[in-house]
Amino acid sequence: MEKPLVVCDYAPPIAKLTLNSPDNFNALSEAMVDSLTKVLGEIGDRRDIKAVLLTGAGKGFCAGHDLRELDAARRDHEDGGREFFVQLFNKSAEMMIRIMKLPQPVIALPHGVAAAAGCQLVATCDLAVAASDTQFGVNGVNIGLFCSTPMVAMSRTMQRKPLMEMLLTGEFIDGERAREVGLINRVVPADRLSAEGLELATLIASKSDSVISVGKEAFYAQAELPLAAAYEYTAEIMAENMMLQETSASIHAFAAKPKN
Amino acid sequence: MEKPLVVCDYAPPIAKLTLNSPDNFNALSEAMVDSLTKVLGEIGDRRDIKAVLLTGAGKGFCAGHDLRELDAARRDHEDGGREFFVQLFNKSAEMMIRIMKLPQPVIALPHGVAAAAGCQLVATCDLAVAASDTQFGVNGVNIGLFCSTPMVAMSRTMQRKPLMEMLLTGEFIDGERAREVGLINRVVPADRLSAEGLELATLIASKSDSVISVGKEAFYAQAELPLAAAYEYTAEIMAENMMLQETSASIHAFAAKPKN
Amino acid sequence: MEKPLVVCDYAPPIAKLTLNSPDNFNALSEAMVDSLTKVLGEIGDRRDIKAVLLTGAGKGFCAGHDLRELDAARRDHEDGGREFFVQLFNKSAEMMIRIMKLPQPVIALPHGVAAAAGCQLVATCDLAVAASDTQFGVNGVNIGLFCSTPMVAMSRTMQRKPLMEMLLTGEFIDGERAREVGLINRVVPADRLSAEGLELATLIASKSDSVISVGKEAFYAQAELPLAAAYEYTAEIMAENMMLQETSASIHAFAAKPKN
Repeated sequence: MEKPLVVCDYAPPIAKLTLNSPDNFNALSEAMVDSLTKVLGEIGDRRDIKAVLLTGAGKGFCAGHDLRELDAARRDHEDGGREFFVQLFNKSAEMMIRIMKLPQPVIALPHGVAAAAGCQLVATCDLAVAASDTQFGVNGVNIGLFCSTPMVAMSRTMQRKPLMEMLLTGEFIDGERAREVGLINRVVPADRLSAEGLELATLIASKSDSVISVGKEAFYAQAELPLAAAYEYTAEIMAENMMLQETSASIHAFAAKPKN
Repeated sequence: MEKPLVVCDYAPPIAKLTLNSPDNFNALSEAMVDSLTKVLGEIGDRRDIKAVLLTGAGKGFCAGHDLRELDAARRDHEDGGREFFVQLFNKSAEMMIRIMKLPQPVIALPHGVAAAAGCQLVATCDLAVAASDTQFGVNGVNIGLFCSTPMVAMSRTMQRKPLMEMLLTGEFIDGERAREVGLINRVVPADRLSAEGLELATLIASKSDSVISVGKEAFYAQAELPLAAAYEYTAEIMAENMMLQETSASIHAFAAKPKN
Repeated sequence: MEKPLVVCDYAPPIAKLTLNSPDNFNALSEAMVDSLTKVLGEIGDRRDIKAVLLTGAGKGFCAGHDLRELDAARRDHEDGGREFFVQLFNKSAEMMIRIMKLPQPVIALPHGVAAAAGCQLVATCDLAVAASDTQFGVNGVNIGLFCSTPMVAMSRTMQRKPLMEMLLTGEFIDGERAREVGLINRVVPADRLSAEGLELATLIASKSDSVISVGKEAFYAQAELPLAAAYEYTAEIMAENMMLQETSASIHAFAAKPKN
């Protein structure tokens, strides 16, 4: 039996997803994008899962799209692959958006290399903790394919000038610089990556999943609105949040404590 | 006579506002929001005030909304408080927007703790200088109330991933990290906070108040426009600014100096 | 024969532009804006130029608009200069936008001082490497002219609170702080500025110019779109990019390599 492209370890309340194609640095082939999309769909329906870890098998986290697949498509299709490419890049974008729309927070745990669409994946996840050996790049320019979809996620997360430098030069930055410019939350020693990821996921899973999912959705929604509209929208969200039984109970417990 | 909820020290050209409900860490109760709104309205009409300092009495700057009030509203209203909550969160948002629309720059001087809507207040003020003991957090998730309105101000000021971590975990960051991610301007020793705040306010108050108010308004307006529209708008603003008598006089004085 | 206001050194694949009015710190007079606009137009049509360096002659990079010209216009026109000012600030904004629309990446190499519209120029260029002696400021407020057009470029590049402080106080920041807040890419010793700039330009010029120009245009276009629209747009851009003969050849060469 073949190993699946995405290995799912369910240990409620946490799910750990592992990109599992180490021979090509977990390339985001169409099949990998499909697998990830499918798994995310399953997780979205599970109420027992409250936080998701995303990691990569082998020497690196993810090196981006599968160049062999792109090369073959170019030759195998009458239109030179154009339709396949549009479909693949759209599918990939939809998978990224699905991470943002997932009720549960997703924590990327990159190590080794996070390149091109692999770096986009890091930028897209709600949080990212990186092993200290991780190199981050959007190096498509080196093979003549500008990282245009990756920059959508990255320009909404990190500083613009360092991103432009990465895009134009194809050069990589290390974890410390990635943290500085906003791409990741923090860097940990490689042998601490799993433990730190699990600790963070456990902390988040200790909160109310209803509250977290409402808040996560509202975060990305308000970020695209003008200020006044964002406030109107979130004031409604907060009022709805107050109507949850569990919120009401927590606040009552807090309010009932004697002042000190 | 009761002490007012917001103490106003007018020492033209500077006004110092102190959130004055130290027993509940200067909670943004409805009455506190109303008081602050009222005081901001008065200051907006005063031409002798050119900069505003915002500080908190007692052990911390501001710990967010008043949980006892929220709890009581939940029980006291037939609709479970829904209407009250919508109104409160909208009032609070309007007060935040009023700070942005105030002709005078507002400098937050947090110390101790700036949590939830208190952290939003820091993000909303034009500038923020923090005492080195300040802890910043949007910890509503810990009591089941995601900090949805605070994230409107904060996501427009600081890096997205560190903010998402604060929102999802409820954990606090210190002043140095707050500065790094863009939430505040700088950190100073606690015993220097008043002096540094006053110095900064005095420097700003030494500039033309007409020019400052035009510029402040234009800053937030252009930030919501597409690039080309932002340039069209600000080119008009600059031309209008040039027509001010005082600007003309300053530029003439400068231009008349011998070149060296 | 008069020295031109903008000196153009064409050394394909690199063009080096030097703002050449050292007596007034390379002020962006109408003539300077016109010269720069014209030169940028020429470069945009040259396929042999793949990267552009922008530097300033004399003691500093650029000190902003020409105050003597502004002062004279105020007195020389019946309308107090209003029409001239609107036209000048619009022309200047169009020149900034032209840098963004230029097919080739533009690298600012500030030294000494980058003030007001000179600081806007740094923010506008795709990349910026600064000499360690550079001071950055938007100090118009000191002469009663708020830096309203500069803040359009700067608020889209750097953190909001440090920018607001610069705008309201007129104070300058050094290169290290400018890097930290996102205004520039990095700081180098003054005697290394030319060499580092050239090295960076050479690296970029070694990439495909077609790919770079498509990517640069897409970067600024997607930055103004909502997320879903940005993904739709860039998925198309990526597919088009895949259809380039050179891209196809590069990817084929890569894909044909034996896996190791």
